[in-house]
Amino acid sequence: MEEVRNYLRHFPEEARELYLNESVPYLDGPVSPLQFYRDWIGPNKPCIIRNAFSDWPALSKWNPAYLRETVGSKVISVAVTPNGYADAVNGDRFVMPEERQMTFSSLLDIIEGKVKSSGVFYVQKQCSNLTEELPQLTEDVQTHIPWMSEALGKLPDAVNFWIGEENAVTSMHKDHYENLYCVISGEKRFILIPPTDRPFIPYELYQPATYKQKQDDSFEIVDEEDSEKVPWIPLDPLNPDLDRYPSYRLARPLYCTVKAGEMLYLPSLWFHHVRQSHGCIAVNFWYDMDYDIKYNYFQLVESLTGAVGSV
Amino acid sequence: MEEVRNYLRHFPEEARELYLNESVPYLDGPVSPLQFYRDWIGPNKPCIIRNAFSDWPALSKWNPAYLRETVGSKVISVAVTPNGYADAVNGDRFVMPEERQMTFSSLLDIIEGKVKSSGVFYVQKQCSNLTEELPQLTEDVQTHIPWMSEALGKLPDAVNFWIGEENAVTSMHKDHYENLYCVISGEKRFILIPPTDRPFIPYELYQPATYKQKQDDSFEIVDEEDSEKVPWIPLDPLNPDLDRYPSYRLARPLYCTVKAGEMLYLPSLWFHHVRQSHGCIAVNFWYDMDYDIKYNYFQLVESLTGAVGSV
Repeated sequence: MEEVRNYLRHFPEEARELYLNESVPYLDGPVSPLQFYRDWIGPNKPCIIRNAFSDWPALSKWNPAYLRETVGSKVISVAVTPNGYADAVNGDRFVMPEERQMTFSSLLDIIEGKVKSSGVFYVQKQCSNLTEELPQLTEDVQTHIPWMSEALGKLPDAVNFWIGEENAVTSMHKDHYENLYCVISGEKRFILIPPTDRPFIPYELYQPATYKQKQDDSFEIVDEEDSEKVPWIPLDPLNPDLDRYPSYRLARPLYCTVKAGEMLYLPSLWFHHVRQSHGCIAVNFWYDMDYDIKYNYFQLVESLTGAVGSV
Repeated sequence: MEEVRNYLRHFPEEARELYLNESVPYLDGPVSPLQFYRDWIGPNKPCIIRNAFSDWPALSKWNPAYLRETVGSKVISVAVTPNGYADAVNGDRFVMPEERQMTFSSLLDIIEGKVKSSGVFYVQKQCSNLTEELPQLTEDVQTHIPWMSEALGKLPDAVNFWIGEENAVTSMHKDHYENLYCVISGEKRFILIPPTDRPFIPYELYQPATYKQKQDDSFEIVDEEDSEKVPWIPLDPLNPDLDRYPSYRLARPLYCTVKAGEMLYLPSLWFHHVRQSHGCIAVNFWYDMDYDIKYNYFQLVESLTGAVGSV
């Protein structure tokens, strides 16, 4: 068993020696669909692409005044939490945000500081909320990224709109999507960890629960009593508890800041943790990943990591 | 350890459920470089492509008379073995063929039965022998496959010419190449096993040796005394010793016959065993594989298989 643990401990190092980059590289512009597939999607490596959406009207138009005028009266779903952590571990629970329906204007009131509120507000609904809740804004962007759609031979499953407060944090997790993340204003700070570092990432099982703001503005945590426990990552990469999760020392996170006008290609199954500047606006495209040989191997590594416990 | 063994035993099954085909599919013609990358190279899946080289003069020209006329006087390297098995396990040795230099005409004399010989003759030199030893023949083919070169963004490392007797067999092995195998005349019969079946493939260490034909026409086996032992697959998929290698029962070989005018895409790291019709002529293109995430995961599976022993 120690030998198995040893191999699981060393193959992520070989990944770095073989093909991973030490930081997230920049491309000066989009490349051909074939080249993007061969250099980035195939080998499952992130990059930041500049000048990929310079022609989007959103880049110059999306300010609070325009958004109030265009979609101010629209009702949108906003994640509200006491601490900025939606979908994250809190104590012995996996706590989801209160999903509050409010007008875009009243959200902007909070973000602009015109209305005081307790709690942290974040539009982070990942159900294609741009096309579903805010179709008026789609004229200012594209509803897919043509070279990515051509590379993958399909359209995105979801186009999501993001706006939120500085304290809103997306806790470490991974998605089954090839993700193109376009920052329209402000900046997003990503911590990225490759899927091959899976042996160093702790998962534990948590009772699902939801935040609920009470009359006195404080938050209570309400268990989702009918839900089974879910696996989630308890580790906070900003302040990792290395006594509890010592093998995380062997992980090699990449840090990158995606600025307005830049697009991050976040490959499927990469672990990511996201912060942002206050009021940062972003649009991202989720393309379903291929469940092929890479996924098959990843699932094996996941199972083996579970079998040996901490490496 | 039993749990680890269990995961190694079951993930190849998941590969079949997720993305592998139950047989080798046919394409009616070449597809775009992007589509070929996305559908076959990326997911590491074999296919047979028809009409991929219908314009090669070789298809109509390459018969013994033409070859005698064009390259009859050329000296080529021919693998000579007593039993047709070059580069294969024999007893407790890994035995390589005698590499005999002879003119193309004298090889054709043997293949056409005009001259009796003991031993099995096979032109199987994988050092770009088409371009190196028989450049006169390159006019009748292409020296690379344009859509594959575009897909991979590189030219082939080697273009190999194959001609041999019916008994010549290539024993089960894998290569670090993306392989396009074009049959010009006759047919090749392949047994293909995916890299994810690695846990079911036995390897053992063997003393390298070489066949040497003696004056009396019998063969002796001469050890390569300065060479270290090499790992090779002792199992013969035509007659597997399941008592000795019981886990091979779990492998799922694909069988396919590639006929004249057809091209097999044999993906990197797929195990393959090859037979042929008598006098079959083929040309193959070896493109260096990418040592990326798939290779990294494969190496892990290889190490783990070694660690747990038979699954």
